[in-house]
Amino acid sequence: MPVNYTPLPGASANLVTGVRLAAVQAHVRKPNRYDMLVVELAEGSHVGGIFTQSRFAAAPVQVCRSHLKTSTAIRALVINTGIANAATGELGLANANATCDRVAKALAIKSSQVLPFSTGVILEHLPMDRIAFGVDAASDALKKNELADWQRAAQTIMTTDTVYKLSSAQVSLGGKTANITGIAKGAGMIQPNMATMLGFVFTDAAISPELLAPLSIALGNRSFNRITVDGDTSTNDSFIVVSTGRCGNEPIKSLDSADGKALHAALERVSVQLAQAIVRDGEGATKFMTIDVKGGRDFAECDKIARAVAHSPLVKTAFFASDPNLGRILAAVGYGAPADLDPAKVSVHLNGVLVAEKGGRAASYIEAQGAAVMKESEITVTIDLGRGSANQTIYTCDFSYDYVKINADYRS
Amino acid sequence: MPVNYTPLPGASANLVTGVRLAAVQAHVRKPNRYDMLVVELAEGSHVGGIFTQSRFAAAPVQVCRSHLKTSTAIRALVINTGIANAATGELGLANANATCDRVAKALAIKSSQVLPFSTGVILEHLPMDRIAFGVDAASDALKKNELADWQRAAQTIMTTDTVYKLSSAQVSLGGKTANITGIAKGAGMIQPNMATMLGFVFTDAAISPELLAPLSIALGNRSFNRITVDGDTSTNDSFIVVSTGRCGNEPIKSLDSADGKALHAALERVSVQLAQAIVRDGEGATKFMTIDVKGGRDFAECDKIARAVAHSPLVKTAFFASDPNLGRILAAVGYGAPADLDPAKVSVHLNGVLVAEKGGRAASYIEAQGAAVMKESEITVTIDLGRGSANQTIYTCDFSYDYVKINADYRS
Repeated sequence: MPVNYTPLPGASANLVTGVRLAAVQAHVRKPNRYDMLVVELAEGSHVGGIFTQSRFAAAPVQVCRSHLKTSTAIRALVINTGIANAATGELGLANANATCDRVAKALAIKSSQVLPFSTGVILEHLPMDRIAFGVDAASDALKKNELADWQRAAQTIMTTDTVYKLSSAQVSLGGKTANITGIAKGAGMIQPNMATMLGFVFTDAAISPELLAPLSIALGNRSFNRITVDGDTSTNDSFIVVSTGRCGNEPIKSLDSADGKALHAALERVSVQLAQAIVRDGEGATKFMTIDVKGGRDFAECDKIARAVAHSPLVKTAFFASDPNLGRILAAVGYGAPADLDPAKVSVHLNGVLVAEKGGRAASYIEAQGAAVMKESEITVTIDLGRGSANQTIYTCDFSYDYVKINADYRS
Repeated sequence: MPVNYTPLPGASANLVTGVRLAAVQAHVRKPNRYDMLVVELAEGSHVGGIFTQSRFAAAPVQVCRSHLKTSTAIRALVINTGIANAATGELGLANANATCDRVAKALAIKSSQVLPFSTGVILEHLPMDRIAFGVDAASDALKKNELADWQRAAQTIMTTDTVYKLSSAQVSLGGKTANITGIAKGAGMIQPNMATMLGFVFTDAAISPELLAPLSIALGNRSFNRITVDGDTSTNDSFIVVSTGRCGNEPIKSLDSADGKALHAALERVSVQLAQAIVRDGEGATKFMTIDVKGGRDFAECDKIARAVAHSPLVKTAFFASDPNLGRILAAVGYGAPADLDPAKVSVHLNGVLVAEKGGRAASYIEAQGAAVMKESEITVTIDLGRGSANQTIYTCDFSYDYVKINADYRS
């Protein structure tokens, strides 16, 4: 069961003008499940994206980067589950390109206007006969107007997710209502076998093409780049922002304009909800944790410390056990910290309760307060480094299961 | 059950002339267990040590560093389990110093000649009445010559370890037999609640005092700094090398001399055995893994990739499942690798079987070979980066338990 997350019913998701969805059963790896989504984007659409930092980026990621390098005028996305087409060498690249060719032919667009995404097992090759079958079935559905709704789309890209991830918003831009809807899939904690996080946010707001790349970076840095599950970075991670420009607003030329800010904020809300949903659906997760580091000299040191705490199995198991084991948090801060950090200036709060300061337990702290906080399902750990004004926030979840038993028993 | 590790019987460990051991029940945290070890070192002994890189180094670590800064002429070690005296602020430091004072008084030496070590829960203060009781009981035992043997010493510093760690060797130096015996304790995988690794290696070989510091660094880099359990760095990690100089050899003036090399090699064997024993005793560990990265441009990139692979929950769970999931190894290499690594030049062997090359599965590789290797309890993953001559080796273990079930089921 996800932690405090109930997916939006499909009927409540806003339609995004210019986005048409086809979901099919391509039998990529297993029968009787929707495993391919083709998204057709209206002419005039523009796309930005960010991708995994892995040096073994999967073939579809390489193709996405290549297609986005020459133009943002993308007209279709094709997403399959089952096989990730990662670490598949030259043949993998050829298969990803062939998938785009097939979509392009079916939709009468250029292959370079298609972005491919795959998620599933690594090191295996796509079954190209089934991929072709799926693409053709999807394009038939689009032609016959047998469209999938957002819920079906979100379900189609699921792998080990226990719930689909769907978020939606509207924003008024110069009197026009712009729709925003996003879907995501993700490997929660302890179920990272897919090793892939995919996020897609669509809006019918018009945005100048050159803004799509910086917008996707800015949104990603506040959402999908702020979550961590097990510290593993996948070969296929992708986050895509699509603007169809069909809602009728005056195209946004700057993200600093009033409309730019309003749209940016709404897109960020949707992106953050989707990213957090991935953490909330971590297999076995019982708590949603926000690691908030502030008072740092620069972003990098805040980010490093926040991730050290978020990745620490010791911290995660203590949270599962509802054990206010502050020492584990301080230990993780200690090894994530720069060499010149003064431990005496660091303070730690748990949901607003001051628990540690001056290198040890806070004088005012009573363990019963910490125990009460630890029973909650949403816990914010605030770490003030006391040496500057930089900050970073990371979202993560606890570690549960027998893995935890030994750790959980220790304090009793 | 540890993976392929049976501890040396105490009677088989070599006595080290000039080292006297007293083990007592100080009731630091729990009754009816040996929880304090006092090691008395003969006059003329010299000590080197390396310690945790954590910015929240525990009080005893701070005291060790301070005492070793002024002199290596240490005369006693005092080690307690139960409470780590970490993240305990000024009072913690005062307690660590008071412990040294008590030992110094009992043994008629200077407080600065005592090194203190603590392991156990963090953020709690030492019960100084019990510490004093224990120190006095230990010094009584030393006076009455009621000495502990090496097995008792190794058992006394255990926390969640399932077996004691003891290793011993002899080496001939200019016709004299030098004895080496070491003990260690460590938090194996999934039982990292102690968050502390301690290692002590003693020899009666004579070594020039100024060599102790570089020797401890060199030995640590090949042993305790090469193991990883869960990626957490403790507040209390300490590795200490002691030379009593009592075996009668001509003091070693250079580690590059013939005798220096022989002694160094023997000390390294003992240190590596102890460090590996910690990994082999990882709770739930079923496999001992050696991650060997070579062909790198520099040590740093080899080290980063080796640790990325060793820390990856995806890799660890695949090894537990005996699943030759090469993609997970490649994915970990991919995110640990520098930006300019060429995936096409990377090759991966599992116990000598070429499994991946040119960015994908090796053409010659048959999955049955990988499956056979994965059933073994000792597996070496060799990753050749194909761009230089630097290398690094890291020892680790697999992830087991229900934590693993979801990952283990996926490929079937």
